[in-house]
Amino acid sequence: MEIKNNKERKKAIDEAVAKLTDPSGLETVGFQSETDFSMPSVITLRRIVNLSRSVLFPGYYEDKPANPYNITYHVGVAVEELHKLLVGQVVAGFNFSEEGMSEDEKVDLWDKADAIATGFIAKLPELRAVLSTDVVAAYNGDPAAKSYGEVIFCYPVLKALVNYRVAHELLKLGVPLIPRIITELAHSETGIDIHPGAVIGKYFTIDHGTGVVIGETAVIGDNVKLYQGVTLGAKSFPLDDDGNPMKGIMRHPVIEDDVIVYSNASILGRITIGRGSVIGGNVWIVNDVPPGSKIFHDGK
Amino acid sequence: MEIKNNKERKKAIDEAVAKLTDPSGLETVGFQSETDFSMPSVITLRRIVNLSRSVLFPGYYEDKPANPYNITYHVGVAVEELHKLLVGQVVAGFNFSEEGMSEDEKVDLWDKADAIATGFIAKLPELRAVLSTDVVAAYNGDPAAKSYGEVIFCYPVLKALVNYRVAHELLKLGVPLIPRIITELAHSETGIDIHPGAVIGKYFTIDHGTGVVIGETAVIGDNVKLYQGVTLGAKSFPLDDDGNPMKGIMRHPVIEDDVIVYSNASILGRITIGRGSVIGGNVWIVNDVPPGSKIFHDGK
Amino acid sequence: MEIKNNKERKKAIDEAVAKLTDPSGLETVGFQSETDFSMPSVITLRRIVNLSRSVLFPGYYEDKPANPYNITYHVGVAVEELHKLLVGQVVAGFNFSEEGMSEDEKVDLWDKADAIATGFIAKLPELRAVLSTDVVAAYNGDPAAKSYGEVIFCYPVLKALVNYRVAHELLKLGVPLIPRIITELAHSETGIDIHPGAVIGKYFTIDHGTGVVIGETAVIGDNVKLYQGVTLGAKSFPLDDDGNPMKGIMRHPVIEDDVIVYSNASILGRITIGRGSVIGGNVWIVNDVPPGSKIFHDGK
Amino acid sequence: MEIKNNKERKKAIDEAVAKLTDPSGLETVGFQSETDFSMPSVITLRRIVNLSRSVLFPGYYEDKPANPYNITYHVGVAVEELHKLLVGQVVAGFNFSEEGMSEDEKVDLWDKADAIATGFIAKLPELRAVLSTDVVAAYNGDPAAKSYGEVIFCYPVLKALVNYRVAHELLKLGVPLIPRIITELAHSETGIDIHPGAVIGKYFTIDHGTGVVIGETAVIGDNVKLYQGVTLGAKSFPLDDDGNPMKGIMRHPVIEDDVIVYSNASILGRITIGRGSVIGGNVWIVNDVPPGSKIFHDGK
Amino acid sequence: MEIKNNKERKKAIDEAVAKLTDPSGLETVGFQSETDFSMPSVITLRRIVNLSRSVLFPGYYEDKPANPYNITYHVGVAVEELHKLLVGQVVAGFNFSEEGMSEDEKVDLWDKADAIATGFIAKLPELRAVLSTDVVAAYNGDPAAKSYGEVIFCYPVLKALVNYRVAHELLKLGVPLIPRIITELAHSETGIDIHPGAVIGKYFTIDHGTGVVIGETAVIGDNVKLYQGVTLGAKSFPLDDDGNPMKGIMRHPVIEDDVIVYSNASILGRITIGRGSVIGGNVWIVNDVPPGSKIFHDGK
Amino acid sequence: MEIKNNKERKKAIDEAVAKLTDPSGLETVGFQSETDFSMPSVITLRRIVNLSRSVLFPGYYEDKPANPYNITYHVGVAVEELHKLLVGQVVAGFNFSEEGMSEDEKVDLWDKADAIATGFIAKLPELRAVLSTDVVAAYNGDPAAKSYGEVIFCYPVLKALVNYRVAHELLKLGVPLIPRIITELAHSETGIDIHPGAVIGKYFTIDHGTGVVIGETAVIGDNVKLYQGVTLGAKSFPLDDDGNPMKGIMRHPVIEDDVIVYSNASILGRITIGRGSVIGGNVWIVNDVPPGSKIFHDGK
Repeated sequence: MEIKNNKERKKAIDEAVAKLTDPSGLETVGFQSETDFSMPSVITLRRIVNLSRSVLFPGYYEDKPANPYNITYHVGVAVEELHKLLVGQVVAGFNFSEEGMSEDEKVDLWDKADAIATGFIAKLPELRAVLSTDVVAAYNGDPAAKSYGEVIFCYPVLKALVNYRVAHELLKLGVPLIPRIITELAHSETGIDIHPGAVIGKYFTIDHGTGVVIGETAVIGDNVKLYQGVTLGAKSFPLDDDGNPMKGIMRHPVIEDDVIVYSNASILGRITIGRGSVIGGNVWIVNDVPPGSKIFHDGK
Repeated sequence: MEIKNNKERKKAIDEAVAKLTDPSGLETVGFQSETDFSMPSVITLRRIVNLSRSVLFPGYYEDKPANPYNITYHVGVAVEELHKLLVGQVVAGFNFSEEGMSEDEKVDLWDKADAIATGFIAKLPELRAVLSTDVVAAYNGDPAAKSYGEVIFCYPVLKALVNYRVAHELLKLGVPLIPRIITELAHSETGIDIHPGAVIGKYFTIDHGTGVVIGETAVIGDNVKLYQGVTLGAKSFPLDDDGNPMKGIMRHPVIEDDVIVYSNASILGRITIGRGSVIGGNVWIVNDVPPGSKIFHDGK
Repeated sequence: MEIKNNKERKKAIDEAVAKLTDPSGLETVGFQSETDFSMPSVITLRRIVNLSRSVLFPGYYEDKPANPYNITYHVGVAVEELHKLLVGQVVAGFNFSEEGMSEDEKVDLWDKADAIATGFIAKLPELRAVLSTDVVAAYNGDPAAKSYGEVIFCYPVLKALVNYRVAHELLKLGVPLIPRIITELAHSETGIDIHPGAVIGKYFTIDHGTGVVIGETAVIGDNVKLYQGVTLGAKSFPLDDDGNPMKGIMRHPVIEDDVIVYSNASILGRITIGRGSVIGGNVWIVNDVPPGSKIFHDGK
Repeated sequence: MEIKNNKERKKAIDEAVAKLTDPSGLETVGFQSETDFSMPSVITLRRIVNLSRSVLFPGYYEDKPANPYNITYHVGVAVEELHKLLVGQVVAGFNFSEEGMSEDEKVDLWDKADAIATGFIAKLPELRAVLSTDVVAAYNGDPAAKSYGEVIFCYPVLKALVNYRVAHELLKLGVPLIPRIITELAHSETGIDIHPGAVIGKYFTIDHGTGVVIGETAVIGDNVKLYQGVTLGAKSFPLDDDGNPMKGIMRHPVIEDDVIVYSNASILGRITIGRGSVIGGNVWIVNDVPPGSKIFHDGK
Repeated sequence: MEIKNNKERKKAIDEAVAKLTDPSGLETVGFQSETDFSMPSVITLRRIVNLSRSVLFPGYYEDKPANPYNITYHVGVAVEELHKLLVGQVVAGFNFSEEGMSEDEKVDLWDKADAIATGFIAKLPELRAVLSTDVVAAYNGDPAAKSYGEVIFCYPVLKALVNYRVAHELLKLGVPLIPRIITELAHSETGIDIHPGAVIGKYFTIDHGTGVVIGETAVIGDNVKLYQGVTLGAKSFPLDDDGNPMKGIMRHPVIEDDVIVYSNASILGRITIGRGSVIGGNVWIVNDVPPGSKIFHDGK
Repeated sequence: MEIKNNKERKKAIDEAVAKLTDPSGLETVGFQSETDFSMPSVITLRRIVNLSRSVLFPGYYEDKPANPYNITYHVGVAVEELHKLLVGQVVAGFNFSEEGMSEDEKVDLWDKADAIATGFIAKLPELRAVLSTDVVAAYNGDPAAKSYGEVIFCYPVLKALVNYRVAHELLKLGVPLIPRIITELAHSETGIDIHPGAVIGKYFTIDHGTGVVIGETAVIGDNVKLYQGVTLGAKSFPLDDDGNPMKGIMRHPVIEDDVIVYSNASILGRITIGRGSVIGGNVWIVNDVPPGSKIFHDGK
């Protein structure tokens, strides 16, 4: 491989580098800061997700041997690494988001992040308990499921829910940005897009999952089941004076307990689907639905 | 990074670890066994899939040089590793699934797994032959395809079908759990969710693929083409005495030869789509369709 | 692990290897060539995508420290590696595709690839400028977005658009096959399937994204927004004399400026959606739509 | 890189491979066995050494964080992995060495190896205690040493002694071959060559270390110090009837307590260096030395 | 692999872990600290050495392409990483060594380490200049050397000298412990053991090198050449009141300019080898040697 | 970690980078070339050594399973990779060394390197045959050796001899620089420094090995055994008109068949040690020694 024109190529590359690093081209896409800190790391967050999964479902998602002589050693090491990495990402998240902290607060940022990470660790047993109900719901709802273990190994909804429930907990602890990256990791892996701001009850499951969207202000009760392609979205956005969508408006649906929504149904706007309703596939819902309703598309 | 409160943090972590490893919290999510064995490993199964792809489509999916001086050396090494890893995963699958084996049978489990893995290797040439027809179908069906090679490199359906056909073969050989994990790996990678229990003929293809669901008891003939978002699903589940769906019922459609199903169509229940039919996009089908039908949504 | 029957297993494996490497079984799936060259490498192309992302959005997608003392060093090293790897893949793409080059042209292939890669590098600043408008569009269009930075970190559309805009540029430079592999990498990662041949304007965004399909001959103006599950597809393919779809026909829609298309809508065929139109969710469009139209599904 | 003569090269390679795999050339260098087992793995043994070091000197040689919140978790995980890997290598060692086991014994080999590995683990606290005396000896003997910690971090003798004391323990447990590979790993790393069969007391140290040789049947008391280049070797080997050296003869020196041997001294044969003696640099000793002797080379 | 006696093994392991983590056994070998910091990392220090080598001898020791289009990019990235890693190791070194810092000083430790690392970076061009003279000396002194490049690629003395000169510089900047670990890395790699405290002039070289020892207080002039196995050591150590060697005494030789010392010679104690002397192989020197002397062993 | 003084640090680093990349400082240590090629890669050469070892001693030094079902597959893959990597390093070696090739020759450099690599592969069976005699010699010469297998696993001389015999073969094929790097890799690993130019017969062995030096023009017959620390070196170098040692002079000893040289003996200059002689430890030989001599140091 004897490539010629070394000098011309060098010149072209140097010019491109100069343009690409010129501050004028970095206004939108380059983060500038007076202070010196690390950006959030998607690689580290992926590790945090894997550690969470290995602690919540011991033996399933790890690359370690399955039946440890003493599970305490393994969970202990994983939780310690999880804490340590989380502290760094929480600091990165606060530093990156230009809101929510005064300069004074930034002084104690490492201590604050340490407290948040410790608080998160303390919540892990509760997260495990809720996720256990999700495993049961997935198993009960699918005739093809042979065991709880198969559900944990194979069902994408479990992966999506670990990420969501971890991210939602971090959001409640006040961490900016990081929760959103964590749920997006699951979106990429499973095709299930759950915003960390959504509120989701126990015994929740999604079958197949690809294409499901659950918006930022959606509220889902207990014992709800969705199928692939279901959207719990917004219908329209009130615009602010600049013509941009206003942020922070309740704009996604409320799904009460014991509701089933079949594949590719779209439920849009701050409406309520009443307890025990069944929403058929492909239907398009933009108004409240009373409890116990059964709404179906006309099949052919 | 000078984090304080070392002792308090240690206490919080130790408490969380204690709760997370308490047997009472592991009933649903932790696998316990009297015997000592390895759990199935998703990492190893991913390697098994990659080895299968590299053997079935030499040169395309490997990270080795493309035009080997002697392809036999490369395929030989890959098949040997494939056999070895498969034995271990088959053993893990049998041990994990709490059914299908008496204690006596477990004694000879390694020999049984060896025989299964050897049987699987012997089937690889046939799998290659069927997958070759799938390549041809994808090429013929897409005006954008420039060559068979482009299809193998770029079309997600090929990846999904390698996993499905490998998993289906293992299922026929009696291996529990492992086939389901293998097809879920393709689901995550391609958005195409094919249950390993489905039966699929030759010259099968799916365009784009994201969101396709093919259920456990679906039967698909030769020369069938699906588009993205198509569901071959169940309509309803007969419940058993406990109110849970009954397992093992034929509940997904039969698609006869030469059928095309356009994007986002849903075909639900144990119905039959007759040979040569065309099912339009977004339609919702819950009844039998006679051969040669053309069923379309009313476009706007 | 004391597996028996060593000889029988060896025999079975040797037989399978012999069949799998027999030229008769490799006609469709094995690439043969008189000359000695490397096949395109998906692993290297993934690295090329990561390098492009790290150069276009410095600090976001890298595994390097975030706030470098001197960004020029980092971008310089990345661009140099990008150039070098791209030369190899461009050569591999030309060699693999059996078209577009005479034997004479192959002689100078490395120089040609060097020139193409250099031309691509020179285009990177322009690609950055267009992608910056896409960031703005995603931010403005989503009430849940808190900052440009969150968009770059979390929104799958940005990943899909980097791959598409890189691939489209390579396609314009005449590179075969490689662009298609690059957009398929994003399809797998995001569920968004954009053919590199499509033409897409500035300020383009897709919300959520899973299941979106944008076909080879689609044309999209400026300031267009799509939602998840939208298809810009072909309606039917004219067949050639052999009954196969004809290649190279304009068969996908034209979407003019300022159009919004809601979730799961299908727009099929070489039709035009007029400027400023709004296409509702789940609708099915196969005819031209005049500017300023609002077409909605009847919700329930 | 357009290498020509593809066919000739292929022919040459195929011929070389045929010769290299012909059994006639493998008599000395290729291990053949009727049964199916793994060879000892130098890579795994290196891991075993690293695990031993990390357990014996927590925090020093690991690539994990230094001050764990709970050292028990870390040591627990390391010891478990150490046990597991050791079982495999002990089995490999027995299988490889063609002595010491009847066919009956091979049946229970995994159980035997499990018991040996467990026995080894139980000895680790004692090994730590002896190695602690070696740390003290190295610190006391070198004016350049600032702390015990510096000794553990920097002094090659500590690395060599961990390997030797681990290997010697395994030898006492009856493990063939493996101990020798373990001390050779230290030889390569430190230039200190201690045969695992040697017997070495407490408070032993070697300064600098490169070139030191301690033979198989050497016996060293407590509180002995060697310098670089010292040989405790054999003087001559009685030959057997075939003219080869007889194996298993006591042929290396006995060094009593409190002896110092300066650099490059050679002490050869089954002689005794009496307690408290000082052997000067570069001297050559082939006869017994009474206690309290001081033997020096004539310096210039 | 069906290992039995799971419970007994678990018990044995738990007991060993308990003993190994009991504080009573960690007095000598375990570092305890009230504060929370990282231990020095040999892995990171190895990386620091590799970065230093790649910056000082661009293209030789890197795993990057050799002839970069723009060397500045590469050196810039390497120096930045070098600085960053060095800061962390300097902090670790100060924290680990229990001397030289008051509590007040520890408060500003990160700033202090930053300043030290920056000072080190500023010295790199001078280090390069001195090392260039060492390359010339090695080339001129060996008839087998074909080019400066061969010397840099192949001669272990160059590796040892990079480590020594880097470590000596850090020692002058007041960094504890870290310099000693850095020279020991070279000792392991080359068999050449140079204490970072030694003072060594320009145009220094060592042929072959294995077994060379240069003590802490040795002083070497310009244009000195050593051969393998040479010791510049201490003759005896004054003992303190506790009977231990006194630390910090000048106890190694002074070698003046233009001296050659042949293989395995030992020069011991605070003596001076006068300018231009030649010391023959295997000789043992414990007294001053006047300038211009030639001292040889009687060969046979 | 909140490091301050960002700007000052940046300035210091930028200044150091500028000095380090200034051509004036790169004269000795930086390789400049008009053409565009890769430097020799120590990492790749280490891989080449590992591949050679795995081919010559199948099963011993690999990280693959030991008892392959079909050794031909494994050796075939290894030899192919070995050939490919060697071609690249041979090209790099020729390009780097500024001698031995006209511009015309450089045109065909890849073909030339291909031929050399193919020639080397063809020699591998012969190298294996000679190395087999070295294994036998090591086994016969050491009472501590239990089997040929132990010798191959544990004896550093075998590693040193594989590197030497591979390097010597490449030297005979005319490859510059690369052979020297290969033997230096063994020097670092084993402490045995054999110049690739030396000529060494069959049944050669070295016990322990650390510190052995065998010079460029040494000639060693069959059935020779050395111990640790032996030097076969040069006595003095004739100087050229510039006062530098003349290159290419025969200056190292000739050791005839059946000679034993004990530890730390130095044999210097172009002298001959006659057949069957025994040279004792620590002796210093600078004159011819007649056949059958026994020369010993006076032991104490």
